Amino acid sequence: MANDKKLVEEITSMDVDFAKWYTDIVKKADLIEYTSVKGCCVIRPYAYAIWENIQTNLNRMFKETGHENVYMPMFIPESLLQKEKDHVEGFAPEVAWVTHGGNEKLQERMCVRPTSETLFCEHYKNIIHSYRDLPKKYNQWCSVVRWEKTTRPFLRSSEFLWQEGHTAHATEEEAQEETIRMLNIYAEFCEKYLAIPVIKGRKTDKEKFAGAIATYTIESLMHDGKALQSGTSHNFGSGFAEAFGIQFTDKDNSLKHVHQTSWGVSTRLIGAIIMVHGDDSGLVIPPKIAPTQLVIIPIASHKPGVLEKAEELEKKLSEKFRVISDTTDKTPGWKFAEYEMKGVPIRLEIGPKDIENNQCVLVRRDTGEKVFVSLDELDKKVGELLEDIQNNLFNKALKHREESTSYAKDYDEFKEIIANKPGFVKAMWCGDEECENKIKEDTTATSRCMPFEQEEISDKCICCGKPAKAMVYWGKAY
Amino acid sequence: MANDKKLVEEITSMDVDFAKWYTDIVKKADLIEYTSVKGCCVIRPYAYAIWENIQTNLNRMFKETGHENVYMPMFIPESLLQKEKDHVEGFAPEVAWVTHGGNEKLQERMCVRPTSETLFCEHYKNIIHSYRDLPKKYNQWCSVVRWEKTTRPFLRSSEFLWQEGHTAHATEEEAQEETIRMLNIYAEFCEKYLAIPVIKGRKTDKEKFAGAIATYTIESLMHDGKALQSGTSHNFGSGFAEAFGIQFTDKDNSLKHVHQTSWGVSTRLIGAIIMVHGDDSGLVIPPKIAPTQLVIIPIASHKPGVLEKAEELEKKLSEKFRVISDTTDKTPGWKFAEYEMKGVPIRLEIGPKDIENNQCVLVRRDTGEKVFVSLDELDKKVGELLEDIQNNLFNKALKHREESTSYAKDYDEFKEIIANKPGFVKAMWCGDEECENKIKEDTTATSRCMPFEQEEISDKCICCGKPAKAMVYWGKAY
Repeated sequence: MANDKKLVEEITSMDVDFAKWYTDIVKKADLIEYTSVKGCCVIRPYAYAIWENIQTNLNRMFKETGHENVYMPMFIPESLLQKEKDHVEGFAPEVAWVTHGGNEKLQERMCVRPTSETLFCEHYKNIIHSYRDLPKKYNQWCSVVRWEKTTRPFLRSSEFLWQEGHTAHATEEEAQEETIRMLNIYAEFCEKYLAIPVIKGRKTDKEKFAGAIATYTIESLMHDGKALQSGTSHNFGSGFAEAFGIQFTDKDNSLKHVHQTSWGVSTRLIGAIIMVHGDDSGLVIPPKIAPTQLVIIPIASHKPGVLEKAEELEKKLSEKFRVISDTTDKTPGWKFAEYEMKGVPIRLEIGPKDIENNQCVLVRRDTGEKVFVSLDELDKKVGELLEDIQNNLFNKALKHREESTSYAKDYDEFKEIIANKPGFVKAMWCGDEECENKIKEDTTATSRCMPFEQEEISDKCICCGKPAKAMVYWGKAY
Repeated sequence: MANDKKLVEEITSMDVDFAKWYTDIVKKADLIEYTSVKGCCVIRPYAYAIWENIQTNLNRMFKETGHENVYMPMFIPESLLQKEKDHVEGFAPEVAWVTHGGNEKLQERMCVRPTSETLFCEHYKNIIHSYRDLPKKYNQWCSVVRWEKTTRPFLRSSEFLWQEGHTAHATEEEAQEETIRMLNIYAEFCEKYLAIPVIKGRKTDKEKFAGAIATYTIESLMHDGKALQSGTSHNFGSGFAEAFGIQFTDKDNSLKHVHQTSWGVSTRLIGAIIMVHGDDSGLVIPPKIAPTQLVIIPIASHKPGVLEKAEELEKKLSEKFRVISDTTDKTPGWKFAEYEMKGVPIRLEIGPKDIENNQCVLVRRDTGEKVFVSLDELDKKVGELLEDIQNNLFNKALKHREESTSYAKDYDEFKEIIANKPGFVKAMWCGDEECENKIKEDTTATSRCMPFEQEEISDKCICCGKPAKAMVYWGKAY
């Protein structure tokens, strides 16, 4: 077991240095490799496989709700980016500019898309004419670029992978309905597949998307008590439609502007998986999204029949689950540590004694618990165990969030909690941006969202004492 | 049927103007929409759905042969692009350069990837150390940018979608084996899924990839007799490894350079589908790759029971096939023309009389043939018909290619065929680039490939009369 210890010791403990623990995991679990391109990483096969599982499931949910995938150009001419005033102000400072094609200087420079609202608007203007053309519900999987000064794998990088949905509707009501529908899909996906509980709510005007009339968010809580904005859904009203002239002839023959939405999640979700479920032995991946759900490790594999049995089990279990078998000549101890690091939900050990007894050992990644299982009921037990692990991860994360969520009745209490207890703080707010700014300045906490489930803690803003308009989740955030 | 005629009349006949016919189809079948970004198009949902089917099938074939997906940065710093001399010479003239991030000028400009060899090399240098780390068999799905002066949807555009495989091996033999394996996978995919017969062969040195020691290609023949390079697979030898210093310690403890390959296909394949199978009524999509395999069109849908029956059939057939049902209030004639334009393999018509007789009408897109089918055996008949259409499309394309392939024994005969008969010409070549250049100058035909299946037409080069080294497929190409 010497190798085992050594490998585990290479990760910084999360209690000692959470940031270091995080970067240790992304390297040691083979998720990320740095490159000579500033702020851009290689998303390695193991991380990309997680992303593919995220894509497959979200894609199905998008298609079931009537969305179609498209692909837009990666470039946006400067004049197109400038068409919607708030939007360009929000994004222009952080875009990458293409100025030359081959040896020639471009007549107009173009940015690499930081997001594609302007391109979708230009397209919608061309293809929407009548109420019969509505709604248009498009989605795009692509990479986008936002020039960041300080970067962190998955959480903040100059280039990242995401999906961006863009829809156009005949009425305000339909656009609002779509905005909330997609927020709910994100919440359902995070909770059911990623085992990450989320708070659904609306962003304050200060925190909303550049060009939106309202931004909705799902906020999740990481193990260190910091919040992570995990997905957003925006209602644009008719602002973009007016700037771009996207009009349609309605049933009553009158000309109207469309109402639009956009919504997105990104590879940031992989960062959330790491920081919600991981521990000092490495990653812990929820079974529904795990590239490998079960790894078979033969014990004393030089003994006759062991490798054959491992292969037989791999073949059988692969019919129902994502299974690999590690039959290399490395020590079992090395392998245990390796697949713990990679967060594989179940380890199956099989050796000569087990074969004799028609059994094997299953070890859970989440609790470390070992059980002996008869090979006759292996299929069934593995299925049950995966489900149990999935549920346990969700419940653990929910318990952690609940224990890390506080109420603050006044500003002193608020400051005391923010300073000493990592997590969310629920507190009343007057709706004024000045108070948000002051709270951020005093405590570094920001408003995460005004949750759909409102509570009336008091009737006064904790900051200025004026009448409260909403209860807000506050917290330090990634 | 007035609407029907009108819609069909809107496409230019392929015999009148093939190029116009092509662009008419990409617009009218809702495949492409132009944008204000020079040389870049919107890939609309119907075209993107074809691409998704291409991706799904190729992805499976790649994974079955041990390849893993990754994601590399979209930018390449200028100094990294310059590391391999031939490579930078080949690509530098056609890249897009990013010079500014936000408001700041970059210290070193970066290009948007035209292909990612240099990024994979940098990564491989970091992660390959021992023979145990080999082979590395990675693939990436992404978009790339090559600044084109004249563009054409799917065939030549400044940005396009593709996959690029990049592998590293311990030996020359393994690299060569991989190069041919992937060429064979492309050939199998084109023939089985796209119903497009291909010629497999090796490119001449003049036509090979910048930095490769050998490039292999699959060449297909379009309806107008022009060739389309449909996929390439390159053996890099150890050239890139030497330029980038990618070395590993072999079993014998000696330090060696890896041997590399790369291979790719792109959205160009959608152009091939259009130009191989399409006709004057629009697209014809092979069933295995068609987003919709069967469209149900209710006849006299105001009559009681018709819409219900259409829905019932849709539900039943959807269990096995990709089916939609058009129950809008447009005329059947309009719908017939619309789905012909979109190349849906089978149209199912059902009206009150059919329901009475427990039957429906199936109409093949490829031949226009109509058959009455009992509803009791509909599943079975649809399956058989789809298979038959798939085979028929392949056989028709193969027959066309065979009829459009000629032999030329001498240069006069060669020039006469190239001038008067569109298609491939097989002719002998001495191996000298000067002859290739002269032939291109005289006839505009280029060497497409030296096919694996060589024939000895004569023993002399058709151009210079010197001893022949290989039989070459020549042709005008996209």
